[in-house]
Amino acid sequence: METVFTEKYPDVKASFSLEVSRIIYSGKSEFQKIEIFESPFFGKVLVIDDCIMLTEKDEFIYHEMITHVALHVHPNPSKVLVIGGGDGGTVREVLKHQDVQEVLLVDIDQMVSEICRKYLPEISSQLSSDKVTCQYQDGVEFVMHSKDKFDLIIIDSTDPVSVGEGLFTQQFYHACRRILNRDGILINQAESPIYTRKWLQDISRKLAPVFPGLDFYHAHIPTYPSGYWLFGFASNKYHPLKDFRRDKFMKQNLSLNYYNPELHKAAFVLPNYVRKLVYDR
Amino acid sequence: METVFTEKYPDVKASFSLEVSRIIYSGKSEFQKIEIFESPFFGKVLVIDDCIMLTEKDEFIYHEMITHVALHVHPNPSKVLVIGGGDGGTVREVLKHQDVQEVLLVDIDQMVSEICRKYLPEISSQLSSDKVTCQYQDGVEFVMHSKDKFDLIIIDSTDPVSVGEGLFTQQFYHACRRILNRDGILINQAESPIYTRKWLQDISRKLAPVFPGLDFYHAHIPTYPSGYWLFGFASNKYHPLKDFRRDKFMKQNLSLNYYNPELHKAAFVLPNYVRKLVYDR
Repeated sequence: METVFTEKYPDVKASFSLEVSRIIYSGKSEFQKIEIFESPFFGKVLVIDDCIMLTEKDEFIYHEMITHVALHVHPNPSKVLVIGGGDGGTVREVLKHQDVQEVLLVDIDQMVSEICRKYLPEISSQLSSDKVTCQYQDGVEFVMHSKDKFDLIIIDSTDPVSVGEGLFTQQFYHACRRILNRDGILINQAESPIYTRKWLQDISRKLAPVFPGLDFYHAHIPTYPSGYWLFGFASNKYHPLKDFRRDKFMKQNLSLNYYNPELHKAAFVLPNYVRKLVYDR
Repeated sequence: METVFTEKYPDVKASFSLEVSRIIYSGKSEFQKIEIFESPFFGKVLVIDDCIMLTEKDEFIYHEMITHVALHVHPNPSKVLVIGGGDGGTVREVLKHQDVQEVLLVDIDQMVSEICRKYLPEISSQLSSDKVTCQYQDGVEFVMHSKDKFDLIIIDSTDPVSVGEGLFTQQFYHACRRILNRDGILINQAESPIYTRKWLQDISRKLAPVFPGLDFYHAHIPTYPSGYWLFGFASNKYHPLKDFRRDKFMKQNLSLNYYNPELHKAAFVLPNYVRKLVYDR
């Protein structure tokens, strides 16, 4: 008998299925259902509440694109806050930058990190770095009360439902701005322009009044709904293209599979229908 | 009972499913199985041999990108040959350019056009234009024996299996070159870099010796495998970026939903892993 995992895309009455060769973990934390299975082509797959969070095959795309764009704009991103991202993939990419001194990961669900440390070490291992502190609490609570300041905040959240919902409110974006240094940058995963366009529009409408310097960029992530994903780039000082630091890229010479300096720029060039969605507010 | 259409992606042991609200047509031509159904979100969907060819919702992406890139490079694309593309979407976009005088569509399967004329008029209606001639025969045979010359050849084929296979051989590419004017451009759909990477590599390896001026560009097409699609741009005279004619775009002011002049350039900027696939031959 063939075992299959299916992720439903209810808004568009479609679904995506992967063959499962082996179930590695299946459990439930205080907050959500967490599963890891192995798929013949995609390798290990992390699923939270029936949505694919990452596959070993294509996680590099999401994790490179949610990190290296801002890290090649900010001249000195010493202190980075990652909200969500308990799997550790975002932290792994952030730490490739030598100028990052401290990373604080705030995820509501400690179990995600525990499971990933155990079964996905190539993604999670940097969670143990000396530069990294993991704090397991509600990201909204943390941001509301933090007295720290950060150079870069990366919102590596699940969708705006269930535990992720609070990470998409204007109140939360205001609070993020408060704990960003004046020249800080905020990056968030901003959903799919075709399958979840209302979420994307909503993000744009709520973020824009808080960060007048707001741009969006895209990447192709095969195992995410529609294979097409947007990211928000918000800063009141830096422009993602005008302040792009090619010198930094050339100096560091990182080994990356998706991101490159030309792509940094090209990723901000959106198709007409996406432009309308995010910029005609 | 819910009716569902499922397209299998056998190479990656995955599949994509759409809810079917109504079956509009289901039949078999001499060459292939042809179906049209209606899906609640994607509108009408054309399926050939169990593969989605187009949906009303996102066909604009494929059809704009397989046409307007070359048509904004060639200074006078008077005579255009479309191989495959019996649905008429490519012809519709080509005819938006006033400098195109003649379009010859050569598709092996007349029934595809007949069905599309009947059920997908918004996609197929330009097949009846005075500028268009439809010839139903094997594209390989046509190209091998044609005494005509073209400014632009667009290979709008199915996958390199079954009837589409001959459109991916080096012999065929040589024959295309023979019937292209010296400054002609050849565009082909070049498959997915993640799900069908061998096909893409194969296209690159076979095309490169015939057209030393060979580049690839990409688009996000949600309902194609992986949502991520490549196109080849082959010409022994024109460079897709250096010879891009922004003036032509500004003058024509076409109403498009995906393509724009900035995207023309950005589409050629490939992620590292795709670059390796297509340029490290």
